[in-house]
Amino acid sequence: MELIFLGTGAGMPSKQRNTSSVVLNLSAEKEGYWMFDCGEATQHQLLRTSIKPRKINKIFITHLHGDHLFGLPGFLGSRSFLGGEEKLTIYGPVGIKQWIEVTMHITRTHLTYPLDIIEVQEGGVLFENDHFTVTTKELQHVIQCFGFRIEQKPLPGKLFIEKAFEAGVPKGPLLKRLKEGEDVRLDDGTIVYSKDVTGEAQKGFTVAILGDTRICSAAKELAQDANILVHEATFDMETGDLAKEYGHSTIGHAAQTAKEANVDVLIANHISARFMPSDLAKLKEQGQSIFPELLIAEDFSHYEWKNGFLESK
Amino acid sequence: MELIFLGTGAGMPSKQRNTSSVVLNLSAEKEGYWMFDCGEATQHQLLRTSIKPRKINKIFITHLHGDHLFGLPGFLGSRSFLGGEEKLTIYGPVGIKQWIEVTMHITRTHLTYPLDIIEVQEGGVLFENDHFTVTTKELQHVIQCFGFRIEQKPLPGKLFIEKAFEAGVPKGPLLKRLKEGEDVRLDDGTIVYSKDVTGEAQKGFTVAILGDTRICSAAKELAQDANILVHEATFDMETGDLAKEYGHSTIGHAAQTAKEANVDVLIANHISARFMPSDLAKLKEQGQSIFPELLIAEDFSHYEWKNGFLESK
Ligand SMILES: [Zn+2]
Ligand SMILES: [Zn+2]
Repeated sequence: MELIFLGTGAGMPSKQRNTSSVVLNLSAEKEGYWMFDCGEATQHQLLRTSIKPRKINKIFITHLHGDHLFGLPGFLGSRSFLGGEEKLTIYGPVGIKQWIEVTMHITRTHLTYPLDIIEVQEGGVLFENDHFTVTTKELQHVIQCFGFRIEQKPLPGKLFIEKAFEAGVPKGPLLKRLKEGEDVRLDDGTIVYSKDVTGEAQKGFTVAILGDTRICSAAKELAQDANILVHEATFDMETGDLAKEYGHSTIGHAAQTAKEANVDVLIANHISARFMPSDLAKLKEQGQSIFPELLIAEDFSHYEWKNGFLESK
Repeated sequence: MELIFLGTGAGMPSKQRNTSSVVLNLSAEKEGYWMFDCGEATQHQLLRTSIKPRKINKIFITHLHGDHLFGLPGFLGSRSFLGGEEKLTIYGPVGIKQWIEVTMHITRTHLTYPLDIIEVQEGGVLFENDHFTVTTKELQHVIQCFGFRIEQKPLPGKLFIEKAFEAGVPKGPLLKRLKEGEDVRLDDGTIVYSKDVTGEAQKGFTVAILGDTRICSAAKELAQDANILVHEATFDMETGDLAKEYGHSTIGHAAQTAKEANVDVLIANHISARFMPSDLAKLKEQGQSIFPELLIAEDFSHYEWKNGFLESK
């Protein structure tokens, strides 16, 4: 699992940071790439990575502010122009379907792939398959805004191959079925139980990616015991009143949520252009005084979650 | 008068060229800045120039394809966020008003300035004041698409100040009125005629900026005797059939139009990403074999029209 930040700014693009977008690379997990938010010029940012638009099969939009949304029509058109054929599913607040449809209609855009737009009305499970569950909760912003918790299901335990051979299992497909948790019957009628030849199931990872929000319990619940929390930090500790007024968080709020939710690592994004690159050390310090495992993402920050640790790539 | 090209690509952004936008700087003529088309990330391109969004007071949209349009909502929002208060007028094809309104509504964008959206239904005079006339004609693209002719009215002739003194005009405001073409009455009742103390009116400049089009008579009419023609060149001479099929021009079509319209300089833009930087010399040669005064614009190409010549800045 990797996280690639395409836009880490707030409100407007600046020379340093584009508007919001982050991509979760689940290709090693056979789920492709999932995008969270799609600010203007997200497709331009993608040009500077190796991620092909057609590889992205899900887009989650946290809320309908332009800095999280205005890259979507261009992305959809280019994904088509570049030969995308695989279905794309968009999850977003009510209103997104009408907006995309009006926009596609007015520009006479005809997509080469099926587009499924699922409007999120309230918290709950958004998506579930054999390997992942995505749940959502409503946060506290100035308009309806969601956060997402992406939870990998437990992975099958390690297969103890010598034990399997001892139990009479031949080389071949039965080994794979045992590893995947299935009990199998041998030719001689013996039943070999998966639990007898495999180790304990391994915990999957959990990532929480939140939209713009005041500090609130929903944020903490989405992040509870997650490995990684991606949380906005539009303000610094001196401007907490403004943060609350505008429905945003300070770096301190993000850190407090990370601490109370007991996450492993907090990645702060949605950094206001008011902060110069030289202000970042102080911003980071403010957050780390509350929660030490804090990083501030830059555009094109690229992290890999590997063996329980977050590596910068 | 200056022309600043913000995006000179076709269809999709590439690393070399953004989607369409060009700015006409009429600040020396006291008209501010006028933008023609506003592809995605036009506001990002502006960040790399000295042009402030609030200085732009008119936007002309040639047609409703995304590569000419998708930067508009972000630009409108940022112009507001950055404290723009002066009225902005948008001219564009029917449908643009609904799209902007739906987009502003869905994103809860409240602009700090008056926004006037004028839908263009057919050819004719779009705008006229004491100094400029903007006319439009429908071109031939796959959807309704317009071109614009921006014509400066004749400038008052040079004031022969010695002649004015000889005629008894005192130093002061009367001189200015004479220069501007007005006849004045002196304190002693004598009437001094402007034409007696000024030279001939000077011709203003004319720029034609066209949207996507097949070669057609409307393009030629808009460009007739213009100083500068900005014309698309999506295809090369080998792919003329494709150009016609897709409602576009080759570099040869652009050159032919420039030649038949008797313009001074042709600036080709809307260059397909199929052409590598190394292909441009050949493309240029193809066009110049028909019309020698041809330039191919790059993103951030910046030209000034000065004393009847186009200077690269
Ligand atoms: Zn935001
Ligand atoms: Zn175009």
